[in-house]
Formats: sequence, C-alpha cells, structure tokens
Amino acid sequence: MFRPVVFLTDFGYRDEFAGVCRVVIDRLSPGTRVIDLSHGIAPGDVRRGALALAAAVDPGPPSVFLAVVDPGVGTARRAVALSAGDHFLVGPDNGLLWLAAERAGGVAAAFEISNSPARLEPVSRTFHGRDIFSPVAARLAAGDPLTDLGDRIEPESLARLELPVAEVTEKLIIATVLAGDRYGNLTLNLGPEQIEESFLAEGMDVTLGVERKPEPQADGPAPDRAPGPPAAPVPQQVRFAAAFGEVESGDALLFPDSSRSLALAVNRGDASALFGLRPDDRIRLSPA
Amino acid sequence: MFRPVVFLTDFGYRDEFAGVCRVVIDRLSPGTRVIDLSHGIAPGDVRRGALALAAAVDPGPPSVFLAVVDPGVGTARRAVALSAGDHFLVGPDNGLLWLAAERAGGVAAAFEISNSPARLEPVSRTFHGRDIFSPVAARLAAGDPLTDLGDRIEPESLARLELPVAEVTEKLIIATVLAGDRYGNLTLNLGPEQIEESFLAEGMDVTLGVERKPEPQADGPAPDRAPGPPAAPVPQQVRFAAAFGEVESGDALLFPDSSRSLALAVNRGDASALFGLRPDDRIRLSPA
Amino acid sequence: MFRPVVFLTDFGYRDEFAGVCRVVIDRLSPGTRVIDLSHGIAPGDVRRGALALAAAVDPGPPSVFLAVVDPGVGTARRAVALSAGDHFLVGPDNGLLWLAAERAGGVAAAFEISNSPARLEPVSRTFHGRDIFSPVAARLAAGDPLTDLGDRIEPESLARLELPVAEVTEKLIIATVLAGDRYGNLTLNLGPEQIEESFLAEGMDVTLGVERKPEPQADGPAPDRAPGPPAAPVPQQVRFAAAFGEVESGDALLFPDSSRSLALAVNRGDASALFGLRPDDRIRLSPA
Repeated sequence: MFRPVVFLTDFGYRDEFAGVCRVVIDRLSPGTRVIDLSHGIAPGDVRRGALALAAAVDPGPPSVFLAVVDPGVGTARRAVALSAGDHFLVGPDNGLLWLAAERAGGVAAAFEISNSPARLEPVSRTFHGRDIFSPVAARLAAGDPLTDLGDRIEPESLARLELPVAEVTEKLIIATVLAGDRYGNLTLNLGPEQIEESFLAEGMDVTLGVERKPEPQADGPAPDRAPGPPAAPVPQQVRFAAAFGEVESGDALLFPDSSRSLALAVNRGDASALFGLRPDDRIRLSPA
Repeated sequence: MFRPVVFLTDFGYRDEFAGVCRVVIDRLSPGTRVIDLSHGIAPGDVRRGALALAAAVDPGPPSVFLAVVDPGVGTARRAVALSAGDHFLVGPDNGLLWLAAERAGGVAAAFEISNSPARLEPVSRTFHGRDIFSPVAARLAAGDPLTDLGDRIEPESLARLELPVAEVTEKLIIATVLAGDRYGNLTLNLGPEQIEESFLAEGMDVTLGVERKPEPQADGPAPDRAPGPPAAPVPQQVRFAAAFGEVESGDALLFPDSSRSLALAVNRGDASALFGLRPDDRIRLSPA
Repeated sequence: MFRPVVFLTDFGYRDEFAGVCRVVIDRLSPGTRVIDLSHGIAPGDVRRGALALAAAVDPGPPSVFLAVVDPGVGTARRAVALSAGDHFLVGPDNGLLWLAAERAGGVAAAFEISNSPARLEPVSRTFHGRDIFSPVAARLAAGDPLTDLGDRIEPESLARLELPVAEVTEKLIIATVLAGDRYGNLTLNLGPEQIEESFLAEGMDVTLGVERKPEPQADGPAPDRAPGPPAAPVPQQVRFAAAFGEVESGDALLFPDSSRSLALAVNRGDASALFGLRPDDRIRLSPA
C-alpha cells in the first residue's frame, strides 16, 4: 500500500484547478489515494495554509503532502520537495511547508524540483500545481526516490515561516490572532507549553482587551472587516475553560483548541464577529 | 471489498477539519473509500444534516455513515454508533442520525462510544470528529464488530429528530419548508403517501399562500432573509406538475422532488428568493 | 485498473447531490476512483462547465467524464453517452460535453441513454445525475461496452457549444471574456494559434479598451457586477508578458494562461474587479 497524497491549495472550489491536479496524479500514479485537506485557503494566505498543513501531520499516516499556495508562481521562487520524519512535502519554497516539516521532526533533505525530470512539458508559467508539484508528488506516492526527482539543496536555505511571538508575563499576555475558522473561533499564538507556564488556570476569569491592527490606507473599508464598532464591549470578563459547555450560551471563553493552542470562542456563537477580530489583531489578557 | 465511509459534516470547505478526519481514517483503515456527502451543512443545522444523510441511504451500497453536526460537542451529549439495516451510523446523539436510521429500517443496535477503545488519545474537547467519530467509523469500515467499539445502550434512549407534521384536509394543505437547495428549490414536509392521499393531482392549479415565521427579536434584519417584501405577490396560482418543463420559464410549480416529497420551485428561477421563503416558514395550498 | 470517473457539476457544495451520485457509482462499480473536477460551476452555466471539462482531457488518463450542468432536466433534451479518443463522456445533450469531446479528437460514437438499461428506477424528473448519468458512468468505468447502455444516435445530431470568435486584424484584436477564475484572472477567446498569428509579441505594450455587455433591463443592478465605474481607468497600457512576475505588483498584464489561451490578469491583484469585467464582455487590444 503506497502512501496517500494529502492535498492543500488556495485554488477554491469554483474552478477546475484542484481537479486537474488530481487527474495528473491519477495518470502518473494510478489508484493513489488523494486526501483533500482543503482547497479553501484564502488566495495567497501562506500562513493559513501552513497552519492547516501542520494540523494533518500527527493524526495521519506517512504521507506525501502536496501544497500549493503560491502567489509567487512564475517568479524566481524555488519549487521544492522535502523529506521530514516519515513524510514527504512538495510545494513552493515560500514557508508554506515549514510548520508541517517542523511538526514532522524537521527537514532531513531538500530538493529543488523546478527542472525535475518528472515535470510535464511544456511547463506553464502560472500553473505549477499541474506541471511540477503534482507530478513530483505522484512519483513520490508511487515510491520513486526523492533523489531522482530534483537537485539537492541545503535545508538551511529554505524559506521559513515566522509566526508572531506572544508576550507572556506574570500578569499579562499579549497574543496575536493567527487564524479564524468557519465557526468564528480564533486561534492564538500561544501553544501548550506557554499556556502551562502562564497565569491561566482552568476555570479562572480573565479580562480580555482587544487591539485591532490598523487598516491599510484605502478609500473604503477593508473588504473583510465590517465597518462600525464590534457588537461586544471590550474589555470584558472571559472564562478560561476546558469546553464550550462550561459557559452560558452566547458567552465568550478561552480554551485549549484541538491543536492544544489557546483559542477564543463563543459558546454557540461567533467570536470573530462578536469582537470584530481577524488574523493579526492582538488581544490582551490579565487576571480579572 | 470493505464498505465505504459516507461522510457528512458542517465543517465547511475553508478549514482543514474534514481533511484531518480523512487522514485519521486512512491511517486506521488504509485504502478505505471515503465518499464526501457534504461538508457544507450550515453550522449546527442538525435537521438539514439529517435530511441529507437520509437521502444517501437508498441509492448507495452498505456503508458506514459518519456524520458530524455537533453543536453540543464538549457537553454531556452522548457519542453513538448504530446499526440499522445493512448500514452503520456514527455521530453525536442529537437526532442527526435518526432519519437515515429510520430509512434503513430502524435502529437494530446502539452503542455509546465516548470511551471507545478506538478513540485517539488525548481526546480533545472540541474535535470529536477527529478523536472519536472518525476512528470508530474507520474500524467499522475495516470490519471490526460494533460490539468491540463501545458500550451497548437502549435504542429507545436515542435522541430523535421530530419533523413538523403537515396538516392535510380535503380542501387545504398547510406544509412547512424543511430545506432549501442551491437552486432555490424548497422541500416541504409532505411525503409521497401524503401527496397521494391529498387533493393534489398532476396538472391541477392550486392557490399558494405564504406564512413566514416571525423574525427573532433583534436590532437588524435576520442575516439570511433579505429585508423588504418578496418579489412575488402571494396568494398566486401554482401548477402541480411532474417536471419543470411543464410550466413557463419563470413560473412557479409544485412537484414531487427526487426524494418524492413535495417541493416548491420556479422553472429556471429561485423559489426561495421569489417568495422570500426559508426553512420553518409555512405555505398554504388549496384547490384554485 | 479500470478508468476513473472525472466528475463535474453545478450542484455546489452545500447540498448532498454530488455525494449521492458518488454513492450510486460506488454501489454499481465498487472501488471506482471518482475524481471531483468541480461542483462549483455557477447554476446552469453550461459554457463554464464545458471549458472546465475540456481542461482535464489532456493532462489526465483515459477516463469517463461525468458532467451534469443541466438546466433542461425534465424537458425533451436528450441524455447522452459519447466516445471520443480514449475517453467516454456522459451528460445532457446541451453542449456541455462538446469542447472536451473536440479536445479528445471528436465524437466517434454517440448513444441516447434516457432509457438506458443501467438507469435506476423509478427515474425522477429532476435528478438525472443520480438516476441516469451516474449509473451509466459507473457501468462504463466498470468496463461495460457503450453499445449495451443506450441507443445509437448520429454524432452530427448532437448539440454543439458555439463560442464567440475573436476578431484579429493587423492592428486590432477584439476578444471576448469566456470565463473568470477565483483569482480574478480572465480567459479570452484567443487560442495559441491566434496569438501566434496576431501582432502580440512577448514584452510588448498594448492599449487595452473595454466594451461591457449591456445590462439586461431590470429595476436594480445585476447581482454579479458591482454598480458604479470600475476602479481602473481604461484605455490603459498593458504588457503582453510570459509571467506575472514580469510586471509590477498591482499592474495588469496579458499572458498565455495554463490552457495557452490569452488571459488578462493583475500581478497579485484581481483583473475582474479592477476592470469591472465578466464573461461576455469584450476587450479591444491595439499596439501601444
């Protein structure tokens, strides 16, 4: 049984791009299981793609991760295939693969694949998902050795993804929103060790303040933030709880989410809408 | 050939949640076919999920239905695995599995799986799709007996899904909108037997009246109903027809839909928008 | 190894329709690989569906193309299964299959399948995807001969898809927008041969003018075009380039896209929004 291809892009669901990549994989490695992780990453949102990819490393089998969030396609950015732990990772060298590779134990070997013998000729300038990344992923899924598929490069030369770092002191946490999900839950940049070392303790109430990132200068409101004040007054008291059901319906809570990072949510509600928060905004937490 | 997993959630297509469940299944039961039924159920809409699940029972092969629309995750609601007819069903005990189980012949056996030996440790408080439901579904797909996967409970103790009941008299039908689809077609709570026993006959014209559910009290308009009156005056005459093509383009019709329930539609148009109708609204039908 | 089913519809991702078709295929041809090309085609947009289908012909293996964009379901339009090159194609006879069949070398044989022995009884009047198209596609994927699945008809009798034809003279190109994608890139009706024969040469600047299709008469603005003038003044100078990276961020360019047709895009921007262009609008190009 060969390894599956775990497939993530920002191609969306309206166009045929992800499907075309899948027909390429099926041609080069018939019967390979392709597991769609998401094709709904916002166009060009490398960080959101990297976080999603990393979330699939631990619970899954040894896999080929095929990831295409690639605003630099057609420029000099490299195309790479990596090995890390039991996994292979294929995509643009823009940090997209970084968190997943770290989660898998770090990059053991790296190859530049822009001129891979596996690529489909003629290579287009805009659809490397079809012409370079999918063919290389298909060969890896079929068992071809990585060394046959590109030119070895130094792992140290790879683009990294730098996440903002939370400030944690005895009486204050300043954390950044990394991502929001469909339910309006917000993941913050505070991992399990940082939670453990902070003043947060299950069941305690904390005071929540909000620091929104300044809008880029433009003639109108930014498209993804509604104009006007958020519905919820801040600062407010918020419980650090283990589960949604521990606060009243409509109340906000802080909790360790399914990746064990700190998250802000509203029981049966939408924290992103309630507080007017989106990625890169910051929150301030202090003991109530 | 093992049975496929038929997979339905309200996870949406932007986040990686459904994909992460699939990598779990592939790890525990490599090569299992996973058939995505839908991940676009509105967040927490248990009834819409239940209807979608039931629509896949008859046309498909013996399957494991894996369904996660679970607004009560992290509360005391039970996690269950059921057998019904040739199928297994896995999900939260909130009525989501009820219609599909009924369609398959009723629940033959029921097991509580919150502490299943198949679950992935540590079990998160917010992502039972990954940690409990997917592992149990994977084991069932791989042929493990249901009795090994949880603690037997009484089928009578399961949460049921109560659908509103249509009122059907000699000269009047009062029916409720159960669901709308992408095309704006509206499914009503009148099944094939009730249609058969009613005054409706193919080709007849009926008078359609509309009773909208009162808006919940709020400062602004509800997000999923446009403010202002609907475009179509009601009451109006509507044909009970066998197919869209039997009325003019832009005209409304009543017809038995693909589940053989009564539906309201507009030929090459959108009945939901035209009449301003959404789930839980009611319509009144009488002979014209 | 049987051939895969490449599956395209306008069913969307909210409802269970595409999933129900997949359970039908799995019942009739267990284990058949189904590759979702897209289910996000706009409702009834036959041309967009035809273009998406054609894009999957060359890069993929011998396949069964199953396509359902079928605004005429329940009318007298025929249901057909075709052979073309190494492929089979199944869908409504409304032009949807035409471009893919041409790309595959033209229709070699055509069959009317409305009364196919493979169909699922009772056949609904609104969901031929489930009852006719998917069963026939499943049988073809399983190796059944096309001749067993319907009644032979003349390929010449099939509905064709007529695309608008670009006007290309020595000093002027008048081209039509065929489709827009998620990134706002616009595909024009100028194929590789026409580009080759035109005055366009890599690196040259051209003057771009815009001719928007008149709005259909209505009381309000059309739903898919924002009211008001586009943000970008036209005419303007635009580079004919090989890749996005050859113009500044935010600048427009013309380039041969991944299907080698002419396209209009904005480097790290959205050409559809910037120029207020959508399918059927026209652009005028002349040497700057």
